[in-house]
Amino acid sequence: MGYNVTQKLINDHLVKGELTPGAEIGLKIDQTLTQDATGTMVMLELEAMGIKRAKTEASAQYVDHNLIQEDSKNPDDHLFLESAAKRFGLYFSRPGNGVSHPIHMQRLAKPGQTLLGSDSHTCANGCMGMLAMGAGGIDVAMAIAGEPFFVKMPKVWGVKVTGEFPDWVSAKDAIFEMLRRHGVKGGVNHVFEYYGPGLKNLTAMDRHVIANMGAELGATATVFPSDEETKRYMKLQDREDEWIELKADQDATYDRHEEINLSEIEPMVAKPSSPGNVVPIKEVEGEPIYQSYIGSSANPGYRDFAIASKIVEGRHIADGLSLDLNPTSRQMLIDLSKEGHIANFLQGGARLHQAGCNGCIGMGQAPASGRNSLRTTPRNFPGRSGTKEDSVYLCSPETAAVSALTGKITDPRNAGFAYPKVQELDQPTIDTNLLDRPLPEEEASKVELVKGPNIASIPKMDELPNDMELPILLKVGDDISTDEILAGGARVLPYRSNLPEISKFTFEIVDDTYYDRAMNQKEDGGHVIVGGTNYGQGSSREHAALAPRYMGLRVAIVKDFARIHWQNLVNFGVLPFTFVNDSDYEKLEQGDVLTFKGLRDKIHKGNQFEAEVKGKGEKIKVEHALSDRQIEMMEKGGLINWLKDRLDK
Amino acid sequence: MGYNVTQKLINDHLVKGELTPGAEIGLKIDQTLTQDATGTMVMLELEAMGIKRAKTEASAQYVDHNLIQEDSKNPDDHLFLESAAKRFGLYFSRPGNGVSHPIHMQRLAKPGQTLLGSDSHTCANGCMGMLAMGAGGIDVAMAIAGEPFFVKMPKVWGVKVTGEFPDWVSAKDAIFEMLRRHGVKGGVNHVFEYYGPGLKNLTAMDRHVIANMGAELGATATVFPSDEETKRYMKLQDREDEWIELKADQDATYDRHEEINLSEIEPMVAKPSSPGNVVPIKEVEGEPIYQSYIGSSANPGYRDFAIASKIVEGRHIADGLSLDLNPTSRQMLIDLSKEGHIANFLQGGARLHQAGCNGCIGMGQAPASGRNSLRTTPRNFPGRSGTKEDSVYLCSPETAAVSALTGKITDPRNAGFAYPKVQELDQPTIDTNLLDRPLPEEEASKVELVKGPNIASIPKMDELPNDMELPILLKVGDDISTDEILAGGARVLPYRSNLPEISKFTFEIVDDTYYDRAMNQKEDGGHVIVGGTNYGQGSSREHAALAPRYMGLRVAIVKDFARIHWQNLVNFGVLPFTFVNDSDYEKLEQGDVLTFKGLRDKIHKGNQFEAEVKGKGEKIKVEHALSDRQIEMMEKGGLINWLKDRLDK
Repeated sequence: MGYNVTQKLINDHLVKGELTPGAEIGLKIDQTLTQDATGTMVMLELEAMGIKRAKTEASAQYVDHNLIQEDSKNPDDHLFLESAAKRFGLYFSRPGNGVSHPIHMQRLAKPGQTLLGSDSHTCANGCMGMLAMGAGGIDVAMAIAGEPFFVKMPKVWGVKVTGEFPDWVSAKDAIFEMLRRHGVKGGVNHVFEYYGPGLKNLTAMDRHVIANMGAELGATATVFPSDEETKRYMKLQDREDEWIELKADQDATYDRHEEINLSEIEPMVAKPSSPGNVVPIKEVEGEPIYQSYIGSSANPGYRDFAIASKIVEGRHIADGLSLDLNPTSRQMLIDLSKEGHIANFLQGGARLHQAGCNGCIGMGQAPASGRNSLRTTPRNFPGRSGTKEDSVYLCSPETAAVSALTGKITDPRNAGFAYPKVQELDQPTIDTNLLDRPLPEEEASKVELVKGPNIASIPKMDELPNDMELPILLKVGDDISTDEILAGGARVLPYRSNLPEISKFTFEIVDDTYYDRAMNQKEDGGHVIVGGTNYGQGSSREHAALAPRYMGLRVAIVKDFARIHWQNLVNFGVLPFTFVNDSDYEKLEQGDVLTFKGLRDKIHKGNQFEAEVKGKGEKIKVEHALSDRQIEMMEKGGLINWLKDRLDK
Repeated sequence: MGYNVTQKLINDHLVKGELTPGAEIGLKIDQTLTQDATGTMVMLELEAMGIKRAKTEASAQYVDHNLIQEDSKNPDDHLFLESAAKRFGLYFSRPGNGVSHPIHMQRLAKPGQTLLGSDSHTCANGCMGMLAMGAGGIDVAMAIAGEPFFVKMPKVWGVKVTGEFPDWVSAKDAIFEMLRRHGVKGGVNHVFEYYGPGLKNLTAMDRHVIANMGAELGATATVFPSDEETKRYMKLQDREDEWIELKADQDATYDRHEEINLSEIEPMVAKPSSPGNVVPIKEVEGEPIYQSYIGSSANPGYRDFAIASKIVEGRHIADGLSLDLNPTSRQMLIDLSKEGHIANFLQGGARLHQAGCNGCIGMGQAPASGRNSLRTTPRNFPGRSGTKEDSVYLCSPETAAVSALTGKITDPRNAGFAYPKVQELDQPTIDTNLLDRPLPEEEASKVELVKGPNIASIPKMDELPNDMELPILLKVGDDISTDEILAGGARVLPYRSNLPEISKFTFEIVDDTYYDRAMNQKEDGGHVIVGGTNYGQGSSREHAALAPRYMGLRVAIVKDFARIHWQNLVNFGVLPFTFVNDSDYEKLEQGDVLTFKGLRDKIHKGNQFEAEVKGKGEKIKVEHALSDRQIEMMEKGGLINWLKDRLDK
């Protein structure tokens, strides 16, 4: 029986386990990607582990999130990351060079390889015939150290692509169609693998758009084959020699089957406040908008900006509207400028921001209170824009540009003029001037880490006790995202390299008494959090596990976990239990005290455990999905302790 | 005897007083300028005064300071300002349109007119044959309401300009030469008036550079004649019909005399941390820099950016350096983009930011701890960059660009290549799309002010009672600055449009119980503050008077006041007394209760008053320096009430 592309990639990198869906497998990681918001912690972890030099084929540290620099904290982090990249032998992409995912695609992505990144949209590089996955920072630190990445063997969901986009419809609408069909959890424990005759109508960058928002489907990864289009793209990047073909075997099969006909897709919009709230644009047409926002890793390509520029050209944005333009990579911004698109945008009334993540992650460009923002970004979780009770709609560049002209959400097919044709450039600019290559080993070994005053070591974490009596400090509902656990945004992100400080923002949006209550309870053994389904969805930020752990979170009991957050909890020694009977969720109240007796003994023996609700006579059956390796790690108090012990031996 | 340009401007606008240096004069104001950081309070003052429509010829509200939008507070302020501009009949320059001063010059500046602005660099438009002055917010509110602006009649300091700049030297170096000669207080109570044969070698924009940093000399204003160059500039802006000639009479004289020969000027740098610390560049050459920063109102012209672009063209910034590019107006950014300069900069490694003040006022682009930043901005006061204990050097665009290539402060004459020639554009872009014109009166009268949740109207202030019994809630020492009274910074500034909220930060650094104690005492009639010498030194922020007043401050008794804070206290109805005998300062203690009897009657009759220390049998002799106009204002409870009463009549 033949292999599909996903199976080939996994098989080629398998160092532990076998291709049985649901079983834990260990994968060799060829490349890693870290960005600044997560990377400072990764670098501190490498330092703590005593790592000498990256063992991967290529690891790159990007600076794209924290670009505002209101004070010295962000630039100090940049200098720390630069020194760490030099010290550990990583590529370093300087501030202003742009967003990690498109730059990685341009300069480093290689068909047939694995990529692990401490950013949930790392999956975008699946567009290049790679197995590209987001993970917690410490997983990436381990990968840089040459350790395998452990993940549940996913099922492979084959998506046969047919047809060709009609005018005014583009790749963003295709991934919206997938989200419309399956929602934000539809892809959990799956790799989406796209194939079929329609692929020839998707450029490498179109595939990037689709692979990027695979994260929003909850997928482990999204995989495209490496074909002639991949080759064409790499040739333009002067890297044709790094291309290999990678296609599914003729007789390959998939665990699930789906078809998407590009010809039938229409413009779509994700309504507030989830990328899964997708509706055909006609359902929201006419909704007034205050802001239109073009850019981000979900629409990073030259085409995505050029088409919007052509729509705006010779026209002007609506009265009172802010058109925010966030270029995604400096290399592409140069071309946009040379080809006149930047002048088009400016004359149309746009505000041009520096290349980077910016407002996509709440670093600026927040909308006004009570106003609608229409964005090409991948996510619209509550508050992610920086504004509380925000109202963010997601859309394609075509929809964002046409709506900027009208001041309300507008079906681009009703623009009143012909769909502009945009040509990809025959000779795009290649500019690696802000992408520093790794230093040679000898030189690297002499580099000292540059630590500004806001960069703090990770405090030591204790082992898992056998008996605990812990109060439920917080009970939350379904779909709690990591943005709600620990917000991004300009106020919080500068403390990513300072655990005690960043912890003060934990669950602030949900319950601003949590920090004080947790810190008061910390010395008495810590606490429990209870949640609903899809707990920890969204961004992969490990701080959303690390900060509660630092504040005393020992056990999380929920209906089910989002994959990456589950992994992060495990890595930092928080026991992730799920209810055996979901109805038990109703029985638990905030303030209840749970008794865990013989915990260490019992989690070894089986995956089920009974916790007692103190003074209520109630018993709650919960279960865990930890492997033996993870149980061992959990007992040590997390991965740092575990690895430190190993290296000390 | 003939008039110089300054005297002509003053004479044409004199509504009170006469041209005797040192005496108070009242001037008719033709134009006003407000920016967003000060403008929200100005608009709230207009609302509180019950103003219907601006009585000036042209008033413009700019949004250029608070562009970051980390949350809804900044964009809510923008929407409020937009609605206020519509309501009161002002021009409105939208976020992203650029910095107030160059835009005002492009679109609104008119030779022969007066301009008052709530920004200390308002003086920049003196380059256009205007009398342009910075002032406190409420002064500008009064001017918008059609009231005269009161100021001490300045002396006129004639500066005869000869010669022509050598290669690598430009207007910034000329104003540095003035600062080198006279320091940051050299121009106090003076207007600098430039004239002479060298003026033909200074473009209108060069003059802008020189007039802008007249603020750094402490000058009341800087004045250039309106000549053929002014006409040329206005023609390019399609406003030739608004040009008039304005030159000094043949037999004009000046109170002071000076000569500056452009041919003899060399590149200069202002060292940390004052724009008065000017040295020839050779004294600091070789100092390593981490950041080079080009832009701001001190170098806003097309030429300033184009020359830097030509220097960077085909080259690359030094390893590890951040080249931050802050375009000053969108109109000019369009030309920079069309002419290929933006692509030059980007290929050289620059980070391109949106048009606005940005890092010049600490809104982003802060340098890393302990690193040098080299900037074309007008100021390098300690901490202004956003970084504590920063180290900021000021320079010309030529020096910034050449130093960006070398990574250290470099005399541009040592660049190693020929000085690039930059041509001013024959047909610069004129783009008014983000500069909304005032609404017609009928339409304007229907506009409702848009107040986000963080925008609060100014509460009504009561009149000055004749008899009061008030406790001394705070006794402070010498040299209390307005930063200690009410801090600036990113934590406090977003509350500038919310008096009740910003008040919570009052005296926080000095005594964090003050707010609660004052608010408790407010209903019982308010309180007194006692201070030493130089009370209220530093920044001119009017909130430092308004917030204590809101919290019940009625009387301040100190040894002596800093001038601007004294004015602010008067404007908001706080009685500013000084001790007749400084030794009485020692007799007063925090907690003492002072009795003021027949206060209104007595301040009319003379400038002395006796307050009794209740229960101590002690009497304290104090005095005031209020004019009759100010006493009237004080009795009404401040300028807002005074004007409101007048309008109600």
